[in-house]
Amino acid sequence: MYPESLKNLIESFKLLPGIGEKTAERLAFYLINEEKEKTDFFADSIIKAKEKIKKCPVCNGITDKEICDICSNSSRDKTFLCIVEDPKSIFLFEKVGTYNGEYHVIDGLISPLDGIDPDDIGLEKLVKRINDNDYKEIIIAVKPSIEGETTALYIKKIIDGMNIKVTRIASGIPIGTDIEFIDAMTLERALEDRKEIE
Amino acid sequence: MYPESLKNLIESFKLLPGIGEKTAERLAFYLINEEKEKTDFFADSIIKAKEKIKKCPVCNGITDKEICDICSNSSRDKTFLCIVEDPKSIFLFEKVGTYNGEYHVIDGLISPLDGIDPDDIGLEKLVKRINDNDYKEIIIAVKPSIEGETTALYIKKIIDGMNIKVTRIASGIPIGTDIEFIDAMTLERALEDRKEIE
Repeated sequence: MYPESLKNLIESFKLLPGIGEKTAERLAFYLINEEKEKTDFFADSIIKAKEKIKKCPVCNGITDKEICDICSNSSRDKTFLCIVEDPKSIFLFEKVGTYNGEYHVIDGLISPLDGIDPDDIGLEKLVKRINDNDYKEIIIAVKPSIEGETTALYIKKIIDGMNIKVTRIASGIPIGTDIEFIDAMTLERALEDRKEIE
Repeated sequence: MYPESLKNLIESFKLLPGIGEKTAERLAFYLINEEKEKTDFFADSIIKAKEKIKKCPVCNGITDKEICDICSNSSRDKTFLCIVEDPKSIFLFEKVGTYNGEYHVIDGLISPLDGIDPDDIGLEKLVKRINDNDYKEIIIAVKPSIEGETTALYIKKIIDGMNIKVTRIASGIPIGTDIEFIDAMTLERALEDRKEIE
């Protein structure tokens, strides 16, 4: 019913997560009404991003260079390694700006129920990197969930005996959130991990 | 902080209505992980849609042909004209499938407060079309709002004396919606426009 080219644009938007038929239609109608300069920029951005963005061979993060800006930055503290579960997390921590160590992206989380074993998330590469460097502390910054815990414990186990401190970012109540909106598991953790006020 | 090409992709998504920084980041990260075939399709769809979709010179709807499928369809009832406020509305009514007349898209609604006068929404073209044809009924299918009412009354006024029936699509409570969620103006209208049960 829609002209072919409009139908394809709607289908394109539907490729994206959380975008259903109605939103895709709305976005497509909006976009064709924009100036050609903007639609060209959009199309070009997709092509260029896909073409240029690669995996950093050191940390598995994303970059448009040979080695990413963080891995190639000699002023980063080479004794800290922060393990994250996807490349985007790196940018989130960098926005915070207080961490100056290195990062390593693992390929998801261990999930025996979904058949995802330690071998599937690239832990050999992580172990090799740890062996080849002099880390003092490894910070595990993956999602607090059963899979996150399993993965953290597994990493802790394989690093054991290497004289490296292994830490986990804190779980608890997000700043500014009313306690009534917090689930029981988080509350339990927040209680358990309570800190003395000094 | 993001690689340039990724930053541009995020900026592109932010061009779209209702998409802020966070959603744009999420969509951009998602898209660069898709296969090249899909990202190429997406970029190509944008370019093709912008290139091919034009305004139908008869009804102001959108089409990839000289004249749109509806205006060029000789089996449509040429005695009914449905006035809508944007090209998308045509597709919405066509999905319903019960209307077989013609459409005419006006360029928005009259809004004295926003400085949008009758001249600004292309009513001369509408009047010319009505004069050149033999419509028996003109159905005004614009949003029920102050601007919608103003526009509908204005159109009614200029058509007056032409012996054409002018109607307005019904306002009221959407099917399946609890009355408690309905605003006072809609409730008032629903009451006023009540129909006898026969």
